Amino acid sequence: MVTAQKDIPLYRQIADKLEELITSGTFSSGEKIPSVRQMSRDHRVSISTVMGAYALLEDRGRIEGRSRSGYFVKARLMSRNKVPKAALHRNKPVEVSRASIVEAVLAAIQQPEVVPFGAATPGDELCPHTRLNTLSNVAVRQLGPAAYRYTVVPGREDLRTQIAKRSLRCGEDLSPSDIITTMGATEALLLALKATTKPGDVVAVENPTYYGILDLISALGLQAIEIPQSPEKGMDLDALCESIRSHSIKACVVQPNFQNPMGSTMPDENKRLLVKICADAGIALIEDALYSDLYFGESHPFSLKTFDETGIVLQCSGFSKSLSPGLRVGWIVPGKFYDQVKQLRTSLGLATCTISEVVVSEFLKNGGFDRHLRRVRSVYFRQLQQVRQGIIDAFPKGVCMTEPKGGFILWVQLPEPIDAEKLVIDALLEKISLVPGTLCSASCQFRNTIRINCGHSWTPRLERALGVLGHLAKLQCR
Amino acid sequence: MVTAQKDIPLYRQIADKLEELITSGTFSSGEKIPSVRQMSRDHRVSISTVMGAYALLEDRGRIEGRSRSGYFVKARLMSRNKVPKAALHRNKPVEVSRASIVEAVLAAIQQPEVVPFGAATPGDELCPHTRLNTLSNVAVRQLGPAAYRYTVVPGREDLRTQIAKRSLRCGEDLSPSDIITTMGATEALLLALKATTKPGDVVAVENPTYYGILDLISALGLQAIEIPQSPEKGMDLDALCESIRSHSIKACVVQPNFQNPMGSTMPDENKRLLVKICADAGIALIEDALYSDLYFGESHPFSLKTFDETGIVLQCSGFSKSLSPGLRVGWIVPGKFYDQVKQLRTSLGLATCTISEVVVSEFLKNGGFDRHLRRVRSVYFRQLQQVRQGIIDAFPKGVCMTEPKGGFILWVQLPEPIDAEKLVIDALLEKISLVPGTLCSASCQFRNTIRINCGHSWTPRLERALGVLGHLAKLQCR
Repeated sequence: MVTAQKDIPLYRQIADKLEELITSGTFSSGEKIPSVRQMSRDHRVSISTVMGAYALLEDRGRIEGRSRSGYFVKARLMSRNKVPKAALHRNKPVEVSRASIVEAVLAAIQQPEVVPFGAATPGDELCPHTRLNTLSNVAVRQLGPAAYRYTVVPGREDLRTQIAKRSLRCGEDLSPSDIITTMGATEALLLALKATTKPGDVVAVENPTYYGILDLISALGLQAIEIPQSPEKGMDLDALCESIRSHSIKACVVQPNFQNPMGSTMPDENKRLLVKICADAGIALIEDALYSDLYFGESHPFSLKTFDETGIVLQCSGFSKSLSPGLRVGWIVPGKFYDQVKQLRTSLGLATCTISEVVVSEFLKNGGFDRHLRRVRSVYFRQLQQVRQGIIDAFPKGVCMTEPKGGFILWVQLPEPIDAEKLVIDALLEKISLVPGTLCSASCQFRNTIRINCGHSWTPRLERALGVLGHLAKLQCR
Repeated sequence: MVTAQKDIPLYRQIADKLEELITSGTFSSGEKIPSVRQMSRDHRVSISTVMGAYALLEDRGRIEGRSRSGYFVKARLMSRNKVPKAALHRNKPVEVSRASIVEAVLAAIQQPEVVPFGAATPGDELCPHTRLNTLSNVAVRQLGPAAYRYTVVPGREDLRTQIAKRSLRCGEDLSPSDIITTMGATEALLLALKATTKPGDVVAVENPTYYGILDLISALGLQAIEIPQSPEKGMDLDALCESIRSHSIKACVVQPNFQNPMGSTMPDENKRLLVKICADAGIALIEDALYSDLYFGESHPFSLKTFDETGIVLQCSGFSKSLSPGLRVGWIVPGKFYDQVKQLRTSLGLATCTISEVVVSEFLKNGGFDRHLRRVRSVYFRQLQQVRQGIIDAFPKGVCMTEPKGGFILWVQLPEPIDAEKLVIDALLEKISLVPGTLCSASCQFRNTIRINCGHSWTPRLERALGVLGHLAKLQCR
C-alpha cells in the first residue's frame, strides 16, 4: 500500500493514507485502527516509522492512543481546535436557586421511552448484573441474619480495605481507617460541605459544575462563588486566587479529573498548586473523584488527595458511574475533618446499607473489577466518539464540543442564537432528555450549551434522536 | 381446683388462686396462662366468670391480655404503680451538644462480644433472613440490570403502594403519591426537620426523646425546647402550650406510640388535641412512627397523621425495627410539605437503594409481613417481661421502670444516688452496652436512669449481664 516517495518521509505518507481512509469512512469514529506492530508487519516498515505516523495523526486530532488498547479514530470536528468557551469570572458570591428542570431530568431516568441524553446514567449493557447477583447470593447466604443488621460508621471493614487497596492506583496511600463509607457520592459531598461550612458561608465551585453540587449548596444555605474553568486545564487558579483575596471562602469543590460537565482534567502541576493555594488560605478542598476510574489514557490520573500533605482535602467518590448507581455505595476520605464527618454521618443517616456494601466489596475482591473497568473505559471512549460524530453530522454549523479524556459526558456549545433551555424543552416533547448548560452554573451562564450523556450504547435510536435534536437546533437558527 | 366458697365470689377465688400460682413461679413472667375457654372447661365455670377473674388480675397488674394471643404474666414489680418520673419543664430553648457516648453505643452494635442492651437493635433470631434472601434472589434476577439502576425520588412505586395499603391499619388513607421513600427513618427525620426549619429555629421535642433526634437538631444548627412527657400520656400538652406562648416554635417532633425511650403511648384524645394545637399555632408536627407496628394490644394504634386535616403532620417511619435495620428502607409522608421534601431528598441524597426497596416491597407483598409482625410482637412482649423480671431480681431496691404497650425498649429509673453515666461506663468495661438517660435529654436530665434494649432473646448470658449491672448499681449505693 505504501511505497517510498521522494521528498515525503515515509511516516507522513502512512499518516496521509490513513487519514484518507478515516475521511472516507473506512475507519469510522471510535473504531480501532491496526496496531503499530501489525502495521509494521503488513507494510514492511519499521516500528518507529509507524509510531511516527501515528504520532502525526494524533497531532492532527484524527486518532487517539489508549493504554494497552491501541489507537482509535477520533470524531471529525467541523472546526478543529475549537473548544467550548470558559465561563466569565464574575467574582461575586451568588445565592443558588434551582429550577424544576432537575426534576424533569431525573424523572426521565425512570421513563424507558425517553432517550437518555440527560442524567449521567451508565448503560444497562455495561452492568455486570449476573455476576453481581451471584456474588451477592453467596455472600448474603453466608452472612445469614448479619446481612440485615445495622452497619454503622465508618462502614464495613472489608469494603474499606478494598477501597484503600485501589487508592494506590491514583498515587494515594490510604488505610481502611482513613475512609468512611456513605450511601452514594452525593451523601459524601453533603458530609464534606456540612463538616467544613456553616450556613451563609461562601463556597468556591467550578463554573460550570455538576448541578447536584449547586443543589447541595442551596439546600445547606451556603453561597457559591463561581470560578471559571476551561476544558483544557480545569479550574482557573488565577481567578480562584483573586476570589480568595476578595472573599472569605470556607471550602472549594473541585472535580480534577473528567469534570462533569466539561470533561476537563487538571494538569498535575495545577492539582499540586490548587492544594497549596487552599492549604495556605485555610480553605477545605472538597475533591469530587466520581469519574476518575474512567480514564482513557495510560494510567489512573492523580487525585488532589495525592498532593495533600496537611489533610485539607476531603475526597468524595462512589461506584455509581463505574459499577452501579442503584447500590448507593460511596465513600469519603475526610483528612483532618475525619471526626466531624464521622459524627455527621451518624447524625444524618445513622447507618449504611449492609447488603450493598457486601456486594460491592465482593465484586472488588472477586468479581474482576479491573477487567470490568477496562471494558467500560473502552466502551465509553467509543460511545463518546460516536455521539460526537452524530452531533457533527446532525447539528447546525458552528457547534463545538469537548474532548474528554475520561468519563462519558459531552459538553456541547451550540451556535450563539440558540437557547439551550428552549431546546431542552422542545426535546423533552420529542421524548429526548438533555441537560441545559444553565443548570450547571449558579449564575445561569452557558445559555447556548447542552450536556449530553454518552453512557448508553450507540443505536439507531440514539442516532435518530441526535438527528431530531439537530433539526430542533436548526429551527432556532432561522 | 376451684370450689364455691361462701361470701367470696367465684371469679375472685379463681383470680386469687391464679395469683398464687404466679407468685410461686408456676407461671413465670411473660408466660402464657390458660385461655378463657380452656379455664372455663377445665374448672366447669362459665366463660364470664373466668373473664371476670382475668379482668381482676389485669387490674392487679399481674397479667396482660393481648389481641388474639391470650393472657400473659406480667413482671412482678417491687412497688406496684410506681413509674419513672417525668421530666421537669424548664421552658427554655437549649443548644444541643452531644457527647461521644453515642459513638460507643453504636460501636457496640458491631461487637458481638458486647451484651446488646444499648442501641435499639432487633435480635437476629427474629430476622426472616432466608425468606428475604429467596425473595430478593428471585426479584433481582427478574429485574436484570434494572436492579442496579438509579431509583430517584419519590422511590419505587411498588414499595410506595405496599406502604399505602398498610397505612389503612392505623386509620390513615394514604395513596402511593403521598409517600416518599428514604434510606432509613433517620433520613426521613432529617428531611422533615430541614423542610420545616432554618438554622437557629426552635424545635419542640419530648423529654426524654430518642437521642438521634437531638443529634439531628444539633447537626442542623437548631435549638431544642424540651417538653416533659410521662409514661402514661406522652408529651405534656399543657407544657407544650406554655412553650408555644413564650417561644416561636417552628416544628414539634413527637413519637406518639411506644415512644423511645419511655415507651409511652398518647391517648387518642391527646393525639387529636396535639394535632389541633400545632395546626392552630402554625407548627409543623413531625411524627416519628418507627415503633408503631410493634403494638401488644388489640389493634394498630392511631397515628397523629390520622387526625391531620390540614397536612401539617410529616410522618416519618421505616422498617428498621420491624424487619431489618441493614436494608435502610424508610419513608416520609410529608403532607403539605411534599414539594420541599421531594426537592431536598434529591439534593441531599439523589437516589435510594434499588435492591433494598425491591426486597422490602416483595416481603410486604408475598413474604407474610403480618405473620412476621404477629410473631415479633409476641416475642418482644415476652422479652420485655423477662428483662423486667431480671431487673427486679438483680437491681437495688427502689428501681422502677416503664411498662410499654409496644416496642422493645425499657426505661429504668435507679435509686437516687446512682449515677447512670458512671454505670454505663462501668458496664462497658464489663462488655455490656447501655444508654444513659442523660443522652435522651438535651438538658441532661435523668441522671439516675438507663434505657435497656430488649430486642434480643432472653438467654443465661443476658440474665448474667443483668446480674452484673445490678451488682455495679449496688456498689454505687454503698
